[in-house]
Amino acid sequence: MSLALIIPDRKLDDLQQRLTQALPDTRIEIWPDISSADEVEFAVVWKQPSGSLAQLPNLKAIQCFGAGVDAILADPTLPALPIARIVDNSLTDTMVRYLDSVLNHYRLRLDQFSSQQRQQLWKPKSPRQLSSICILGLGELGGAAAQHFSAAGYHVSGWTRTAKQLAGVTCYSGQAELAQAVADADVVICLLPLTAETDDLLDKMFFEQVKTGTIFINVARGAIVDDAALLAALDSGQVQAACLDVFRQEPLPAGHPFWLHPAILITPHVSAVTNVSTVVQQIAENYRRSQRGEALLNPVDLSRGY
Amino acid sequence: MSLALIIPDRKLDDLQQRLTQALPDTRIEIWPDISSADEVEFAVVWKQPSGSLAQLPNLKAIQCFGAGVDAILADPTLPALPIARIVDNSLTDTMVRYLDSVLNHYRLRLDQFSSQQRQQLWKPKSPRQLSSICILGLGELGGAAAQHFSAAGYHVSGWTRTAKQLAGVTCYSGQAELAQAVADADVVICLLPLTAETDDLLDKMFFEQVKTGTIFINVARGAIVDDAALLAALDSGQVQAACLDVFRQEPLPAGHPFWLHPAILITPHVSAVTNVSTVVQQIAENYRRSQRGEALLNPVDLSRGY
Repeated sequence: MSLALIIPDRKLDDLQQRLTQALPDTRIEIWPDISSADEVEFAVVWKQPSGSLAQLPNLKAIQCFGAGVDAILADPTLPALPIARIVDNSLTDTMVRYLDSVLNHYRLRLDQFSSQQRQQLWKPKSPRQLSSICILGLGELGGAAAQHFSAAGYHVSGWTRTAKQLAGVTCYSGQAELAQAVADADVVICLLPLTAETDDLLDKMFFEQVKTGTIFINVARGAIVDDAALLAALDSGQVQAACLDVFRQEPLPAGHPFWLHPAILITPHVSAVTNVSTVVQQIAENYRRSQRGEALLNPVDLSRGY
Repeated sequence: MSLALIIPDRKLDDLQQRLTQALPDTRIEIWPDISSADEVEFAVVWKQPSGSLAQLPNLKAIQCFGAGVDAILADPTLPALPIARIVDNSLTDTMVRYLDSVLNHYRLRLDQFSSQQRQQLWKPKSPRQLSSICILGLGELGGAAAQHFSAAGYHVSGWTRTAKQLAGVTCYSGQAELAQAVADADVVICLLPLTAETDDLLDKMFFEQVKTGTIFINVARGAIVDDAALLAALDSGQVQAACLDVFRQEPLPAGHPFWLHPAILITPHVSAVTNVSTVVQQIAENYRRSQRGEALLNPVDLSRGY
């Protein structure tokens, strides 16, 4: 029996070696170099080629190599098997530190001062007053971010698909309450999962409902945002600035209008990258559970899509 | 008797009004509109024109409207009177938040990602590992910054003119130990007072002693740094990046090579701006003390220059 790593375009030597140490009796193979498709019982997957999982007849479970499973679920030939995702505290910490850093970048007006520097302009200004934050999505990452900012003294609201309660966070839910959730927010952070319901959710109407001059941060998935609607909102000043870490197509293609927009800060999908050293034990544990026929850690609910 | 505000080029209505409330029996006048020079017994000063204090024959004390008194002491006609400076917790908090924001800006590589964005380049990279910080100057601001970063888990070293001890901070002192203080620091922060001893202290030799690739932040005074030496160190890569909030001449003159240097981030002296609402009580208290002939709060030691 073997465990297959189906993670194209990434160096996997380190992960293979660490998993071999954690699971010494299991062959760890790197797709597409699979010696025998019949023997693969567990797959660790990130942006797998469509059809690759369907070719493994004895697969028992699928482990997503990250928090977001949308790319796995997009495969029309996906076998009906239990799927787990990574819930990793170091990943959560990385995300929260990213958001904190970006928020302080805007608070201190480093965006404006950088732009003024290129024009050799000296215009002192006190920090932006950013006191209220709305977080769209209160899952592992969104919930941790909401609690971090609430503890730091911000007014935090949150919005979720189904009703939720979180200490220190004013919670809204369902399409009908989305406008209310963002109405007073100086900063809106998108941490929603990408599902059929959230695809293009942040559209022209959404950006008309945010507080005028809000700052928008997307660290979830690019396809949740209607690119043209965001650009229009930035051009009208309805949204003051946007920090985008995720895009409909990655890498963001040359010539895309986001690249050179003066009110957009682009980071190349670095807000939360899975840390090999801390997730190996989680993968190994799920492998053992699948071998014993037990429920996986951090299972994905296929009816919700995350 | 009256109190004179000698703070050119700044709107002072708000300060005048608040001081009038705090000291209802005292006339608060704004220089140069002084009704009678003989009656001025207390002056609140920031970058006063040379000679303006010498024209007040009955002045009893001078209150600097900020933390750094170098501009006051530069006046050759300065009367020999007690001088106080502002020690303001909100000013200290503002400085620490500024430093924290700038450090996280570099940690997250927002400098590199912004530059790559202008070239439409997608190059993901994990955060810079910035684990050790050296703080030059451990006064009110430097000491608070050192303790903040030490509590946040950084290795912090500090350097001062005379030996000092601070919990959680490896302290060095005197010219002979300056090289040792900065040798291992990923980030060097200048928070020294500007005195005859620190003028041009950070020169060619200093920048040869820092760790290769260090990040340099100056939030003290521009004249402490030899501009040409810093530029040479940036061009050679000895210093990786510099964030400068203070300059030998402010506003930084158009055409100065700092403006367009790709490795320099310029902020227009915003790292710690005196907050009117919190310092009014400190000024009023020193006014009352000077009227009663008592020692001032936060006095300046003229032999040290700060």
